Amino acid sequence: MQRKGILFIVSGPSGAGKGTVLNQVMRDLSGLSLSISVTTREPRDGEIDGVHYHFRKNEEFDEMVKNNEFLEHVSKYKNRYGTPRTGVEELLDAGRDVILEIETKGAIRIKSIFRDAVLVFITPYSSDELETRLDSRGSENSNSKELRLKIAKDEYKKMKHYDFIALNDDINVCVETIKAIIIAERSRLTRNTNAIERYIPSK
Amino acid sequence: MQRKGILFIVSGPSGAGKGTVLNQVMRDLSGLSLSISVTTREPRDGEIDGVHYHFRKNEEFDEMVKNNEFLEHVSKYKNRYGTPRTGVEELLDAGRDVILEIETKGAIRIKSIFRDAVLVFITPYSSDELETRLDSRGSENSNSKELRLKIAKDEYKKMKHYDFIALNDDINVCVETIKAIIIAERSRLTRNTNAIERYIPSK
Repeated sequence: MQRKGILFIVSGPSGAGKGTVLNQVMRDLSGLSLSISVTTREPRDGEIDGVHYHFRKNEEFDEMVKNNEFLEHVSKYKNRYGTPRTGVEELLDAGRDVILEIETKGAIRIKSIFRDAVLVFITPYSSDELETRLDSRGSENSNSKELRLKIAKDEYKKMKHYDFIALNDDINVCVETIKAIIIAERSRLTRNTNAIERYIPSK
Repeated sequence: MQRKGILFIVSGPSGAGKGTVLNQVMRDLSGLSLSISVTTREPRDGEIDGVHYHFRKNEEFDEMVKNNEFLEHVSKYKNRYGTPRTGVEELLDAGRDVILEIETKGAIRIKSIFRDAVLVFITPYSSDELETRLDSRGSENSNSKELRLKIAKDEYKKMKHYDFIALNDDINVCVETIKAIIIAERSRLTRNTNAIERYIPSK
C-alpha cells in the first residue's frame, strides 16, 4: 500500500526569500508538488499567472469563497490570498508530497485540518537583515514598508507553532535545510507504518 | 546561549551496514561525534581498539559496571556491550551532536534517560537481503547465523519505538537519509528556543 503524501507548509516574513528557496527545492527533489495560491493582488514584474499565483479579481475570489473552493483564505496588505482545495487532497491521496507557501494564520488553520502537516518557518538571520531586504525590494511601495514590518513581527510571534526553522542567510544552506526536512519526514516511522511489515523476516 | 547537542541513536540488525554508513556520515557532517561502545567480544579482522570498539576483558567490563561507568549495557551472542557514560554527557553539554550505534534494547533504555534523543533504525530493503548479507559475512561463524537471524527478528519487533527508518539498499541514499535526519533535527524549533528571540524584530 502506498504511503500517503506529506503536506509541507512554508511560511516566513516578506523578503525572507521563500520563493527562490522553494523553486530550487522543487528542481532538486522529485515526488513533490507546489500548490499555487490564489490572490487578488496585482502581479509584480515577472510574475506569471498560474506559476507564481493564480491572479483573480475580487469578485472571482468571492465566488470561490462562496463555492467552498478554499482550504483557507485571508486578507493581508488589503489583498486577499487563498489556498485552493482542489489539487491538494488529490495529490496527497496519490502519494505525492505537497508544499504550500502561505502566511502564518493560514498555516495554523490548515494544520488544524491536516494534523500530520509539517510547518516550516523560513527567516533571514536577523531583524536588521529583514529590514534591509524589505528596503531593497523595488517592487513594493515604500509607504507600505512600515505596515509590512509590523506584519512581519506578527508572523514571528506565530513561529512557536512551527515544527522547523530554516535560516536563509545563505540560500544554498537554506535549500539544503528544506530538502533535509523533506527527506527526513519521508523517513519518519509513523509515515511508513504500512511498509514496516515487509521488513520483518518471515522465518 | 549555545544549543545543547542532540543525541542520535542508530540501531539495526547485524549486516545492515550501519558502520559503513555512519563512517561516511561522520566524514560529511561537522559538529558530530561518534561514541565508541565497549565490548567483550573478540575483534574481527581490521577492527581497531578505540576506533570500532573499546575491546575489554570480561573482568574489566565487570569493573566498569560496578563503577557505574555505563549509560546502559547488555549481553548479545554471549558477548557484552556497553555505552560509556563518560564523553556522551560532556559532548552534549558542549553543544556537540553525538551518534551512538547500539542495539535496540539499549537504545530504548537510553531514550528513557535522554528524552530528546532521536532513534534511527537502519535496515536493508527486505528480509531476503538481510539473510544474503548475513551469509556473505565471512568473519562470522556459520553456526551463529540462525541465532543472529532470530535476534534480527527481535530487533525488528522493537522498530516501532524508533523515530526514523533508513533503508540501506543503496548506501549513498542511506547516507543522505541519515544526514537529512541530522540536519532536520538541528533545525527543529523545539531545539532552538534559545535562538528564537533574536529573530523577532525589535521595532
